[in-house]
Amino acid sequence: MQEVLNFADIRAAAARIAGQVIRTPVLRCTPLEAELDAQVFCKCENFQEMGAFKIRGATNAVLSLSAAAAAHGVATHSSGNHGAALALAARRRGIPAWVVMPENSSAFKKRAVAEYGAHIIYCEPTMQGREAALARCAAETGAVVVHPFNDPVVMAGQGTAALELHEEIPDLDLVLTPVGGGGLLSGTAVATRALRPACRIFGAEPLGADDAWRSLRAGHIEPMAHPDTVCDGLRATIGPLTFAVLRTHVDDIVRVADADIVAVMRLVWERMKIIIEPSAAVVLAALDTTPVAVKGLRVGVILSGGNVDLDHLPW
Amino acid sequence: MQEVLNFADIRAAAARIAGQVIRTPVLRCTPLEAELDAQVFCKCENFQEMGAFKIRGATNAVLSLSAAAAAHGVATHSSGNHGAALALAARRRGIPAWVVMPENSSAFKKRAVAEYGAHIIYCEPTMQGREAALARCAAETGAVVVHPFNDPVVMAGQGTAALELHEEIPDLDLVLTPVGGGGLLSGTAVATRALRPACRIFGAEPLGADDAWRSLRAGHIEPMAHPDTVCDGLRATIGPLTFAVLRTHVDDIVRVADADIVAVMRLVWERMKIIIEPSAAVVLAALDTTPVAVKGLRVGVILSGGNVDLDHLPW
Repeated sequence: MQEVLNFADIRAAAARIAGQVIRTPVLRCTPLEAELDAQVFCKCENFQEMGAFKIRGATNAVLSLSAAAAAHGVATHSSGNHGAALALAARRRGIPAWVVMPENSSAFKKRAVAEYGAHIIYCEPTMQGREAALARCAAETGAVVVHPFNDPVVMAGQGTAALELHEEIPDLDLVLTPVGGGGLLSGTAVATRALRPACRIFGAEPLGADDAWRSLRAGHIEPMAHPDTVCDGLRATIGPLTFAVLRTHVDDIVRVADADIVAVMRLVWERMKIIIEPSAAVVLAALDTTPVAVKGLRVGVILSGGNVDLDHLPW
Repeated sequence: MQEVLNFADIRAAAARIAGQVIRTPVLRCTPLEAELDAQVFCKCENFQEMGAFKIRGATNAVLSLSAAAAAHGVATHSSGNHGAALALAARRRGIPAWVVMPENSSAFKKRAVAEYGAHIIYCEPTMQGREAALARCAAETGAVVVHPFNDPVVMAGQGTAALELHEEIPDLDLVLTPVGGGGLLSGTAVATRALRPACRIFGAEPLGADDAWRSLRAGHIEPMAHPDTVCDGLRATIGPLTFAVLRTHVDDIVRVADADIVAVMRLVWERMKIIIEPSAAVVLAALDTTPVAVKGLRVGVILSGGNVDLDHLPW
């Protein structure tokens, strides 16, 4: 069986998107290190262009298109960062982008997508409404649909963050990323298995959106109809392609309560002086309860983003 | 006349405190760079130990003492970061520290000082009350008094931040720091004049605490009896020694309204994803109105700290 995602895809993505994304710094999480008696290396994708890793996958997808395919533009449905990231990647290549958004998306998110020059198509706020609108848009325009995570090209782009992390810190014992749809975790897992085979790989997930944890145990995707978590970036259910990669390469998923996520997010703001969103804090909150105790280990985590509404903080 | 502070003092301080303070990173302020058409290099002392540059001067003061002098300990009065910094520096050398604090200091600040093992002496919340209590403490214990800013050893320590900045970015056209008591600005000015003589040097100050601006114009210190600003680190009046250095080396002071300080602080949180306090944001808010327009220039600023009460944000 052909693999969904190979390390060569991630290497190629890294070469393709170089210069279009920020090589983000790796910071030590000293306030947690003392408590855990471990070294904790944070790949700071909160400092990435647009405040999240999403631009990696979107840029790789847009730059992978042939000139003929690209001419018709790209399209996606998104209520989050992927829509804005795809819009920016498309604008940089000089091609049109269509983003299907639920009518009830926040004004903040609509503005971000519009500012990058994408055409916004409003739809009913249901998954069927989104997918129908996207299919119609693609049929009418010929645009290539770029899924937020269930696409090997997107997964390969997201994997470049872990590639950079291993290049900078070559002897990690354990790697954690958040898992929402599974794009970041898939890319991270494939990069890690190739570069550091002995390194453990865990996903971290809110208890109220634990579809990845359930699905790995069930052996099939268990969709989460009503996710309930403060982590707005982790409410999606994993897709068939990301699930296939997770089953093959990921050691396990760690589930964390929202209260613990918010507490560690606040600790990072207060002590590290960097802004991370709840969906990023989940990996640090998970360090207390990983199946392999982290004591004495060198741990790498991907702080996936820092997009927070400062008028509505979760504490 | 002998100079208050020489560059050799700053070089010596850097050697003395190496390993006890963090060599903080320099980040670009890209959201402001586009607007100003300038390059803006931020020396991130918000990432410094204890979240502010103060540990530099306190450590230099403690390590400069002879063994005989150090044996009696150190003392200061402080309602802010200097007291905690001196406490930590003293604990690291294994000597006692006394910190005189107004009775009405916040529980947060009392706890920080106590956690580093200092003896807290409460006093009436007036400058006379503080100074009387400190004099009594020094007389009884023999402790060496370490002033928060009006002391060449402290000023030399604070100057090491600018030394590192110039080492990393050797061709700055203009440097700005906040000015409260003037310790950071004094050290920065002497380091900058030595390393990059053509570089302009400005202080940035809230309009509601513009004693440095007034004093430079008057030719003598004009104390600020009732400072009124959101910048809690910039309410002190400059001292005789810092004033002497400022008159000699600083080009001018830029005054900024609190509303502009809070606005740029929020922009930095939202776009740079780093936490800075109002007393640090003042330098970025000042870039719009520097006497020398910054357009086309390479500008260095010292982001002095990131200690913010997350339950009481200024917006």
